[in-house]
Amino acid sequence: MRLKCTISYDGSQFSGYQVQPNKRTVQSELQEALSKLHKGQEVRVSGSGRTDAKVHAVGQVIHFDTFLEIPTDRWPVALNSLLPEDIFVTEAKVVDDHFHARFDAKAKEYRYRITQSGPRDVFKRNYSLYFPYALDKTAITDASSYLLGTHDFTSFCAARTDVKDKVRTIYEIDVYEEGTDLIIRFLGNGFLYNMVRIIVGTLLDAGQGLLQPSELKDIIVAQDRSLSGKTVPGHGLYLWKVYYDN
Amino acid sequence: MRLKCTISYDGSQFSGYQVQPNKRTVQSELQEALSKLHKGQEVRVSGSGRTDAKVHAVGQVIHFDTFLEIPTDRWPVALNSLLPEDIFVTEAKVVDDHFHARFDAKAKEYRYRITQSGPRDVFKRNYSLYFPYALDKTAITDASSYLLGTHDFTSFCAARTDVKDKVRTIYEIDVYEEGTDLIIRFLGNGFLYNMVRIIVGTLLDAGQGLLQPSELKDIIVAQDRSLSGKTVPGHGLYLWKVYYDN
Repeated sequence: MRLKCTISYDGSQFSGYQVQPNKRTVQSELQEALSKLHKGQEVRVSGSGRTDAKVHAVGQVIHFDTFLEIPTDRWPVALNSLLPEDIFVTEAKVVDDHFHARFDAKAKEYRYRITQSGPRDVFKRNYSLYFPYALDKTAITDASSYLLGTHDFTSFCAARTDVKDKVRTIYEIDVYEEGTDLIIRFLGNGFLYNMVRIIVGTLLDAGQGLLQPSELKDIIVAQDRSLSGKTVPGHGLYLWKVYYDN
Repeated sequence: MRLKCTISYDGSQFSGYQVQPNKRTVQSELQEALSKLHKGQEVRVSGSGRTDAKVHAVGQVIHFDTFLEIPTDRWPVALNSLLPEDIFVTEAKVVDDHFHARFDAKAKEYRYRITQSGPRDVFKRNYSLYFPYALDKTAITDASSYLLGTHDFTSFCAARTDVKDKVRTIYEIDVYEEGTDLIIRFLGNGFLYNMVRIIVGTLLDAGQGLLQPSELKDIIVAQDRSLSGKTVPGHGLYLWKVYYDN
């Protein structure tokens, strides 16, 4: 039987989602909890994609196979009792044996949080980028409009990646305030390695007048990582939701 | 020269404010940073009072003596550059050589945060008590009214304390909602060891109908810790502000 679970995690204390030797990762914590439930048997967990160190998830999706006969609505309770406090299973659902959290994902939503005003806040240090510089929100929105649609995003992809096809489609980018924070929300069919963080870094350059919004057009076409902005830190980033058919 | 500093800290990763052997504490981090600034010389820091493990501070106040000639407005910058990310100095002020952060404190404000609804939120696990049970806010407010004024608070003080005089005055207790959270705010001339956390535990009992608000009167008079409620966890508690004359 295959189960699809929606999970949330605070990325602060993780070296990212994916298993790495001698590192604390979300996947390894999940697999350890599942192994305990399965009397020591190894259970392989597949996620919708990796998230980097410090990156958070509100709605990451995973799947795994099980022989246990636990009622579906008891699965979150069973797993949460074995998981550390910074991972929480919000939902479990029995799915078709061919379902795949990564390959069946139709779209992903990411949000990036930026704190613009006030003194540095110790309670936000792991949850928002502190960026107390004047930003032109209209310039950010204008710049973001050039990224919408289907493009080769080589200019916005970290060099170390194995992915060949760098064409992705961004459906929506919203720039809005939440309290005193600025949120940049992305909806796309998929994102390359560090793509959201490089786009945010580039939009912050536009917001500071370091580049004109229309230059985004040329940066995309050039397919050259050196032309786009810095990769902003992971701790402001949230994998918000993964979309599937039905 | 004596300096008074207002500091904020995220208590999650601290074994409390006060120095303890082989533990990470706020005071020891402050003293270490100050010692670096003073070319290795030991600098003793005095706080307005201790906070326990996991307890946060928005406006803790400390004082220390220094021979350094740093302009007052540069002190926070100098200290923050040496302090870990979970402590932040918000303000520094030169004070009279007789000023004492603890003995001159006229009043203290604490806030306790309770998350009442929704599934467990990984992002709040260190910052709010998760308590998804029905609470009668009016009963909490009613119960709190009996605590106002000057009383012997023995019933609301942890057994392990050296303090003899357990008479304190509570000026204000407010019970209000902030978003989906319930906040209980305390203003008093001083608080005994664990006093706020035991009062909150008792008010939560009243909020659940486990005791009548008017029973608070008898609990105070009895001077018996076994009659009051549980000590709620430290991670929902914030030392919000310390008040001084001028």
